[in-house]
This record gives sequence, structure tokens and C-alpha cells, in this order.
Amino acid sequence: MFRPEITVCDCTIRDGGLMNNSNFSLETVRRVYECMCASGIQIVELGYRNSKTQFSPSEYGPWRFCDEDMLRKVVEGVENRGTKIAVMQDAHKAVAEDVLPKEKSVVDIIRIATYVKDIDKAIYLSNSAIEKGYQTTINIMAVSHALERELDEALQQLEQETRAIAVYIVDSFGALYSEDIDYLVHKFKRYIRKSDIGIHCHNSQQLAYANTIEAIIKEVNYLDGTLYGLGRGAGNCPLELLIGFLKNPKFNIVPILQAIQDIILPLQKEMEWGYSIPYMIAGMLNLHPQEAIKLMSLPADNPDRRDFVKFYTRMVDAAG
Amino acid sequence: MFRPEITVCDCTIRDGGLMNNSNFSLETVRRVYECMCASGIQIVELGYRNSKTQFSPSEYGPWRFCDEDMLRKVVEGVENRGTKIAVMQDAHKAVAEDVLPKEKSVVDIIRIATYVKDIDKAIYLSNSAIEKGYQTTINIMAVSHALERELDEALQQLEQETRAIAVYIVDSFGALYSEDIDYLVHKFKRYIRKSDIGIHCHNSQQLAYANTIEAIIKEVNYLDGTLYGLGRGAGNCPLELLIGFLKNPKFNIVPILQAIQDIILPLQKEMEWGYSIPYMIAGMLNLHPQEAIKLMSLPADNPDRRDFVKFYTRMVDAAG
Repeated sequence: MFRPEITVCDCTIRDGGLMNNSNFSLETVRRVYECMCASGIQIVELGYRNSKTQFSPSEYGPWRFCDEDMLRKVVEGVENRGTKIAVMQDAHKAVAEDVLPKEKSVVDIIRIATYVKDIDKAIYLSNSAIEKGYQTTINIMAVSHALERELDEALQQLEQETRAIAVYIVDSFGALYSEDIDYLVHKFKRYIRKSDIGIHCHNSQQLAYANTIEAIIKEVNYLDGTLYGLGRGAGNCPLELLIGFLKNPKFNIVPILQAIQDIILPLQKEMEWGYSIPYMIAGMLNLHPQEAIKLMSLPADNPDRRDFVKFYTRMVDAAG
Repeated sequence: MFRPEITVCDCTIRDGGLMNNSNFSLETVRRVYECMCASGIQIVELGYRNSKTQFSPSEYGPWRFCDEDMLRKVVEGVENRGTKIAVMQDAHKAVAEDVLPKEKSVVDIIRIATYVKDIDKAIYLSNSAIEKGYQTTINIMAVSHALERELDEALQQLEQETRAIAVYIVDSFGALYSEDIDYLVHKFKRYIRKSDIGIHCHNSQQLAYANTIEAIIKEVNYLDGTLYGLGRGAGNCPLELLIGFLKNPKFNIVPILQAIQDIILPLQKEMEWGYSIPYMIAGMLNLHPQEAIKLMSLPADNPDRRDFVKFYTRMVDAAG
């Protein structure tokens, strides 16, 4: 039996863009979009709408900005029976002015990623987008590092000051266990009554999919995933596993398998993601994966790359 | 807070031996044994004690038989502060006569793997080993395919007819979700009162570790894992994750990380394991991974190897 409220969001291009400065080819982005439309996925996130004053267009690819003309090239001629298009704004790296009035845009949803400390900026961006005719989500990053009192206050503020369709728990460091998911869902639901709750997990400890299932059981309705778990470090919750688990007859896994074999596996030549010991160590110690990513990007013949004991010792010190 | 009853068993050499006909070098097996002794892992399983009438010693390596003289070469000179040595007997491929009286053996525990239908053979092997002075476990394989009534009867029989230290739930196909773990633990505990319950998971759907945590929460005390998840197909519950999660101060993760970097990663040149779409498909459909393994062993340039849609369609038909 499926729960009709469950809404799946594919973040392959947006989250994957953290690995290649959002430099996917137009063809790749079109194929991902086609795949999500054909699979019946409800939301596809095609990149960031971040500010060109914060990111240089000479350094970053088109999916860091998602200009409307680029998005139109993605959707042109593709049959879409209800898949909504999302872009993400980082609360501290985006401006409201970059969002056009809804009637001039192919975007349906503005997803706002924020740290607890930037919650006022996030609320401003959310309200501004809602006024222009969009739906919004608020994605609270690095929730495993948030101080309880500050998180409580942020949730209370969100409930009172904006009307997002969902407020997300984002396990940026892949540090959460199922008990933590329970605890956080319970907390979020205590404050957030007018929006749904969402979950976005990272796979540092091979728990992204399992924690997403745990969230489903606790009545979380917005679920993020990426094709084959594509994403920085150990990656994300694999969309194919999620669709295999959900029983909604509207979902079709075949276009997802097709996209993985045609466009995702070939990307492995350019970028590396998935479970690895350095990411596990960072996740276990509730640390940002940046040091692990740095280690994994050393040349293959650098002995430090596989000196896990040395890395672990250094990270234990860093975790204090 | 840790639970002192929790007992971890490393199956790297035994389960990994399904990938290379148990042909690990003596040096590799010694290093795994040393690692488990140094990490404080309570049980290390060094291979099978299966019958040479069933497996030809010209085809299979020493760890399919674990002759006592080979085991002595493994343990010689290694400091052991309480790590027990296990070998596995397959109920339908082993004979009681291959087990020497305990005082002539370095083995402490005979683990008996059985399908529900072979439960009488398993009980015979268990009782025979107990009489000779060993502890035993009974590992019920392919539990996701067992018929309820037959499984209930087998559990009842185990409780009445032998005295293993643990009866294991073995998710051979990596098909179980956390709800299934709950259900099975509850069932096992209803029948099995005199033995502990154990869990052995496969990673086809990236749930091996998560399901092991779920089992811990449900008061399962015997936990299997392998270094870096080494094992056939998608592999096993990664021991490093498990030790990172358990708070027992007696465990030390450093020798585990050392063994992974020194002896497990180099094995990736000879054998391939870990999450992959064909294993995911088999797990999702509750099928034996053999067809997926066959697919993954095709040459890299064979287009069938990455035709996941074709494989999925064939497997859906196979699953009926």
C-alpha cells in the first residue's frame, strides 16, 4: 500500500553539481529531466539559482545559476505529465531578485538551503518567492551540528513567518542514525504544523536509504534522492532504491535504470562518488566531508590516499 | 552505553571465500586473524569445514576445509586475548566426522549454515559438535524465502533438540527491510528461548548495516560483518561501520582500518564486490544473486553487462 502524500524529489543535477562546479552538459541535464518525467517523479531539481556576484560564471557551469533560457532548452519538447521543476537557492549565496515572477519562469519550486544561523535570510527568500507565485521548501543543512535551542527557535520562526510546502531535515554529514531521525522528525513535527517534513540524507555511513525509509515510517512525506546515489563524497540516497521500495503504481523504475546505464555510469570516468573509508570516518565523527574529499582527490600513487589510520587519527583530533 | 552481551563475528575469510573458492593466501588469513585479535572482536570465522567428498581440494582452497594444521599456521605466534575461532559447516555439504574432539582442535565454535528444509541435518551436526566440546550456532539461510509454517516448525525443533549459543537470521538475498527484521526477530524470539538470536545481512539494497542496527535495537546480540563489506555480490555488513557504531570500549577500530588498507583494498584487483544495480534488482525482487553475479562477471566490453533494463525485465519474469 502506498501513501499518496509521498513526494519524491530528484537532486541529481543540483547535488551532483557540487562535484563538477555544476558543469553538466545540456544533453545530460535533458536526459535526467526526461527520465524523471517518464518515471513519474514529482519534482526534479535542475540546479542552483545562486548569485553571479558570489559565483563567477567563468568558473561555474550553467546549472549553478539556472538562467531561464537554459532551463527552457532542457524542457523543450519533453513530455511532462506533472513533474515539477525546482531550483535551489543557498540562503547566504542567493538574492531574491534573481527569481523572476512565476509567469515568466519554467520553475515551480524554489528550494532554499540554509544553516540555522541564516534562517532569517531563508525566510526572506521563501516569502519573496511565494509572493512571486512559487512554492518553496526550506532545507536545514548540517542539522547534526545545530544547537538544540537555536534549531527549536528556527523551526518556530519558520512555522510563524513563512509557508513552505516542506521543511527538510538535511543530514549534510551523513552522521545520523535511525534513532536521530526519529528524534528530529518528532522535533520538527512539534513545531512545523502547516508544512510537510522532508528528508535529505548522505551516504557516508551507508545509511542514506535506510534513514529515508525510517523517515517514511515516521510520516515524513518529502524524500530526496539521486540517480545511483550521485553526489559529493559518499553520495546521496539512491533514487532507484527508493522507487523500488515505494509502492506507488505511478512510479516507473525502468526509465531510471535506463538513465543510470546511459548517462550516470559514464560519468564515473570524470568523477568518483560512493562509500569509502575516509567518508565513513568523517560521517562517524559527525564532520564535514571536505577533508575526506581532499584525501580522496590525491593522486592514486600518493600513499596518504590510502593511509586510513593516519587520516582517522587526524580526524579524531579535529572532532575534539 | 554499550550492551555487554553483544558479540561480533567477523566472516571476511569464510564469506569472502565464496568469491575465490576459499583461495586466500595464508598471509591474508593470518592478517585477518591478527586484526580481529587486536580489535577485540569476539569471534573470527576462518572458513568452512566442509567435506572433501563434496568439494575437490584440487578446485577449492584450504579455507573450504580448514584442516587443523592450516588453522595452526594461522594462529601460531599471534597474541589472542579471547577472540574465539569459528568455522562453518553447511548442513548439506559437511559431515560430523570432520570435526575432531575439541581438545585436538584450535576451533571454538562450529557455525552450521542450513536451509529450513535441512534443519534435521543441522541439528545432528550441532549436537555432534556440542558432544565433542564445541559451541555451535545455527544460521538459517535464505530466510526471506522460507515458508512461515516450515520456519516456525524449524525454530520449535531447534529450541527442543539442540543448544546452540545463537540462532541466526540470514538474509542471503539482501531482500529484507527493517520491518521484516522486526517481524523475524519477534518470531525467532517467540520460539528460541535458550539461545541468543543472531543477524547476518547482505548489502544488495545497501541495508546490511542498517538492518544490523535495527536488529541490535530489537535485542539481537550476535552480529556478523566483514572487513569493508567483503563478500559475494554486494557484500556484507561492513565491520568498520559496526564497530564505529557499537560503544564497547573493548573494541578498537584502528587495527580494522589498518587491515582494510593493507590487505582488503589490494584484493579489489582480483575480485569485485559492493553495491551495483544488478544486485539491487535481485535484492529488490527477493532473488538469489547468482544471475546478477553472472551478469557482473561478463567481460567489460559485453554490452549486456550494463544493460540493466534488459536484466530487470528478465528478473521480473523470473520472480514470477
